[in-house]
Amino acid sequence: MFKGQPYIGIVGAGECTAAEAALAEEVGREVARRGALVVCGGLGGVMEAAARGARAAGGMVVGILPGRDPAEGNAYLTVALATGLGEARNAIITRTCDGLIAIAGGYGTLAEIALALKMNKPVVGLGTWEARTPDGKTAPPVRARTPQEAVETIFRLLRLVPRLQY
Amino acid sequence: MFKGQPYIGIVGAGECTAAEAALAEEVGREVARRGALVVCGGLGGVMEAAARGARAAGGMVVGILPGRDPAEGNAYLTVALATGLGEARNAIITRTCDGLIAIAGGYGTLAEIALALKMNKPVVGLGTWEARTPDGKTAPPVRARTPQEAVETIFRLLRLVPRLQY
Amino acid sequence: MFKGQPYIGIVGAGECTAAEAALAEEVGREVARRGALVVCGGLGGVMEAAARGARAAGGMVVGILPGRDPAEGNAYLTVALATGLGEARNAIITRTCDGLIAIAGGYGTLAEIALALKMNKPVVGLGTWEARTPDGKTAPPVRARTPQEAVETIFRLLRLVPRLQY
Amino acid sequence: MFKGQPYIGIVGAGECTAAEAALAEEVGREVARRGALVVCGGLGGVMEAAARGARAAGGMVVGILPGRDPAEGNAYLTVALATGLGEARNAIITRTCDGLIAIAGGYGTLAEIALALKMNKPVVGLGTWEARTPDGKTAPPVRARTPQEAVETIFRLLRLVPRLQY
Repeated sequence: MFKGQPYIGIVGAGECTAAEAALAEEVGREVARRGALVVCGGLGGVMEAAARGARAAGGMVVGILPGRDPAEGNAYLTVALATGLGEARNAIITRTCDGLIAIAGGYGTLAEIALALKMNKPVVGLGTWEARTPDGKTAPPVRARTPQEAVETIFRLLRLVPRLQY
Repeated sequence: MFKGQPYIGIVGAGECTAAEAALAEEVGREVARRGALVVCGGLGGVMEAAARGARAAGGMVVGILPGRDPAEGNAYLTVALATGLGEARNAIITRTCDGLIAIAGGYGTLAEIALALKMNKPVVGLGTWEARTPDGKTAPPVRARTPQEAVETIFRLLRLVPRLQY
Repeated sequence: MFKGQPYIGIVGAGECTAAEAALAEEVGREVARRGALVVCGGLGGVMEAAARGARAAGGMVVGILPGRDPAEGNAYLTVALATGLGEARNAIITRTCDGLIAIAGGYGTLAEIALALKMNKPVVGLGTWEARTPDGKTAPPVRARTPQEAVETIFRLLRLVPRLQY
Repeated sequence: MFKGQPYIGIVGAGECTAAEAALAEEVGREVARRGALVVCGGLGGVMEAAARGARAAGGMVVGILPGRDPAEGNAYLTVALATGLGEARNAIITRTCDGLIAIAGGYGTLAEIALALKMNKPVVGLGTWEARTPDGKTAPPVRARTPQEAVETIFRLLRLVPRLQY
């Protein structure tokens, strides 16, 4: 956290269905309404929809891109950072966030969920991967059924009282 | 692959049970017997056991460490590389390998499985994480029941005829 | 560049003299007045002074930190990103910028100058390192004598018409 | 250092003159004769010549590549690691080495010299960059006139008694 503002990662695939985009947009909006900064992978799909929602609510969005050119960032980012690191940039997304919300997603999303958990960051999932540990236990992410519930849960896990900004 | 030699990642937790260590050691040995180079995270537990097995079979083992000091590498590595990148080093392990075998493991292992799959590398699991995609399908890794089967499967997935070295 | 806004790196040491801080603050201010986003290493010294100047002029500043905690960022950053990559984060600073201004500095600054030049980004120096190539030629950075000249030069090298914001 | 074996980086440009290649080859040979492992960037030019020399003396060479495919490594590497990190891989080369020898070189070489010095690693230069600090002092690397002198100097700076292997 930087100067009292939570950084919430919203992660998911670069291509997604309209329904997933709607979820991501609402998650982005609700996170931004609570005063948090949104961190994402900067590309399309869920990342773009989350950024669009956050910006619509007056929030800031940082996109941490795998490639070498900030121009690859989607149109809703406040800041587009070109890391040139490829998939290793996923570890920067999870490192800089206080917590993550994962929406649907592919293997990259699963990697971000796992990296965040390895770094002891809370992760809430919305229609995303389910994982069972080697000894058969259900593992995080904590599951939510709605964007609202996902956002409330991540803030509760961060033990932050959401400061709603209407 | 470098000069015709497959690079096989063997990944798992830095602390493990004696049974898991025995599996990892046999996997390391079988991979090395087939002429492949073993890549691992360089620390203890499964990484150390796999390295021990590979060295016992005359193989080479490269440990790609998260920290800043090669001296943190386990005693069985041929080469210990200190990346200083923390968990971002997982993406280097998966990037440089042709395929991975995951044994049991924690969140870091799940991240390596997911990163490898994202990079289109085959992954075989031995008593490791199970993952279900957002739409409820069983996802890789391909599951093996024995070290022998795990090694044969990864070589088959790599479409490599194993060159056993007795 | 992202959506027409130049990203200018301002790099220098984490500890600096009052005179160097004054230069950095003015560089930050002049860069921000021209509508560019300031990227820096996020720590103290020149990085903090540049951030202070940019913010005073209404600009945005992104700090790309070597450590694992955004809270290590200086108080003037708009966004503090914790990479956890150590010195490897220098390559992200230079990768994401369109051009750099180097002020005084230590070995880390020299590394950033060199990485930026390797990436074909223009670099302007203000009381910073001088380098001679192996065959004895004077190498960039292009040298400036004042903050004003440094900023005008980097914008000219970027072939950007500065859009002064009074 | 790993298990008592020094890791020496030999850095320089991916394209070089025949004279520079001859220097690099002799440096590689002399480093390997003293029992050290050679670390390089894995590509052509100085990196390839240093690797050729080290292998001719029976040494091991690890190439830490910027790209995504180990097959990009030169033919003399013992191990080719594909990081996929681009220029950020330079920080891994300097991090994992105990000391560096820089031969001629371009901006990438200057970056490696600076990163190594930032990490408090000794650097010896052979016909390479010269740098003057912001206050006009001559900075390292320590300069050598011959490959033999370069290698003896780096071992002396590492306070290692060279164990010549004839």
